[in-house]
Amino acid sequence: MFIIGELINGMYLSIAKAIKEKNKEVIQKCALDQIACGADALDLNCGPASKNPTADIQWLVEVIQEVTDKTLVLDSSKPQVIDAGLRVMKNKVMINSTTADPQKLAIMIPLANQHNAKLIGLAIDAKGIPQNKDQRLELAATIVSACSESGFPIEELYLDPIVLPVNLGQAQMKDILEAIRDFKIISEPQPKTVIGLSNVSQGSSFRSLINRMFLVMAVGYGLDAAILDPTDKELMDSLITAELILNKQIYCDSYLDAYRKK
Amino acid sequence: MFIIGELINGMYLSIAKAIKEKNKEVIQKCALDQIACGADALDLNCGPASKNPTADIQWLVEVIQEVTDKTLVLDSSKPQVIDAGLRVMKNKVMINSTTADPQKLAIMIPLANQHNAKLIGLAIDAKGIPQNKDQRLELAATIVSACSESGFPIEELYLDPIVLPVNLGQAQMKDILEAIRDFKIISEPQPKTVIGLSNVSQGSSFRSLINRMFLVMAVGYGLDAAILDPTDKELMDSLITAELILNKQIYCDSYLDAYRKK
Repeated sequence: MFIIGELINGMYLSIAKAIKEKNKEVIQKCALDQIACGADALDLNCGPASKNPTADIQWLVEVIQEVTDKTLVLDSSKPQVIDAGLRVMKNKVMINSTTADPQKLAIMIPLANQHNAKLIGLAIDAKGIPQNKDQRLELAATIVSACSESGFPIEELYLDPIVLPVNLGQAQMKDILEAIRDFKIISEPQPKTVIGLSNVSQGSSFRSLINRMFLVMAVGYGLDAAILDPTDKELMDSLITAELILNKQIYCDSYLDAYRKK
Repeated sequence: MFIIGELINGMYLSIAKAIKEKNKEVIQKCALDQIACGADALDLNCGPASKNPTADIQWLVEVIQEVTDKTLVLDSSKPQVIDAGLRVMKNKVMINSTTADPQKLAIMIPLANQHNAKLIGLAIDAKGIPQNKDQRLELAATIVSACSESGFPIEELYLDPIVLPVNLGQAQMKDILEAIRDFKIISEPQPKTVIGLSNVSQGSSFRSLINRMFLVMAVGYGLDAAILDPTDKELMDSLITAELILNKQIYCDSYLDAYRKK
């Protein structure tokens, strides 16, 4: 599982404050904490309060590159913010995200190609959130097809089925899980899959429990990557155990420790 | 999920002692505790130490019927023990189990038919434990076919893929999960599926965590029933949440309590 730490996001007040005050210690500590807990990559999102997101994303990239060479994930719906982040990027990079809209694809795929970036493709377009598995597959196929036409390597494409909060989208949860499985049959080579996990428990009680259970089921359906809170120890224990069951790491009695020492 | 409590089993010393001393309070308390925690049925196994398993299973059935009318699951590889239990059975009943061996099927299916019993069919035969998904499907198909020929209702058949301990059978875990899914395509009407959960963590550290994660993935693959310890609260919380995600109960903020009050 490719684990993308979600915590450097301006929707969290402490991060918004650190971005505003250019307090790099807070950001660097948040980066290193997530990496220590198992993050393979770090999502960077300036948040809704940022008045100058192109400058803020560049500052985030620069201060985090001082302390890690892990993959950085530029998270914005605005192409100019992604572009700004890419200009100062030295680490490996992932673009989060394009939608299935032709005008978005026409901007984001060339950017990803130009910077050898991985790309997250959301199964959504201007018509809004898909209502079932077939709509998800159709949107995903649109993205795959646009990537193929532009010579973007499909193994570097991470399709996101759009996870809904279980308290609103309960009837669609099984479709979302099956979309994770079925995205793989859209093309050969296969695209990868990713979810933004925490959304599943938005507004619910027992958030951590719901996150854990959805993640484990998604792993069972073949999920490749997740944006999540790697400092949630129970979540990481669940993920490590799910991957153990699927034979993705060799069993030993102290497999939780062994994973963390890797 | 049809939850079968596993605790009335003579392999546990306290149960073996209660059976030997005919201490019905211990057995009745164990039955009621499991039901209070959510068991829909109770597995009854006299254990390896029983010198007179036909008499012992009858005693178990009789003392448990005094306190509950839940389904009782007669758990023995010996047809004469199953037969003895059936003779004193007033509750609904499930036979645990037949294998795919012709001589076992020839005894167990008529017994199940005669007593309107549900039947657990193990994907195993005299050749031993199956080595992959295809062998599991072949064994399951043999059982389904024998049931069909004898007029046993396939909806009452619970196919068990044989869960191996993860520390020994790690390479087969995914096959076992996929067998749970694919058993459904053997016939129409579909057979049901069941697992003996605790075996997955036999000999491992972190038993409860491994049980939870395997169960949740199995639920994601469509599992219908499980033999497990319903007094493991974290296990039950996980199961309830997994079923919530799959839309098998309506979301409410207190969904864990709501499930338990049902």
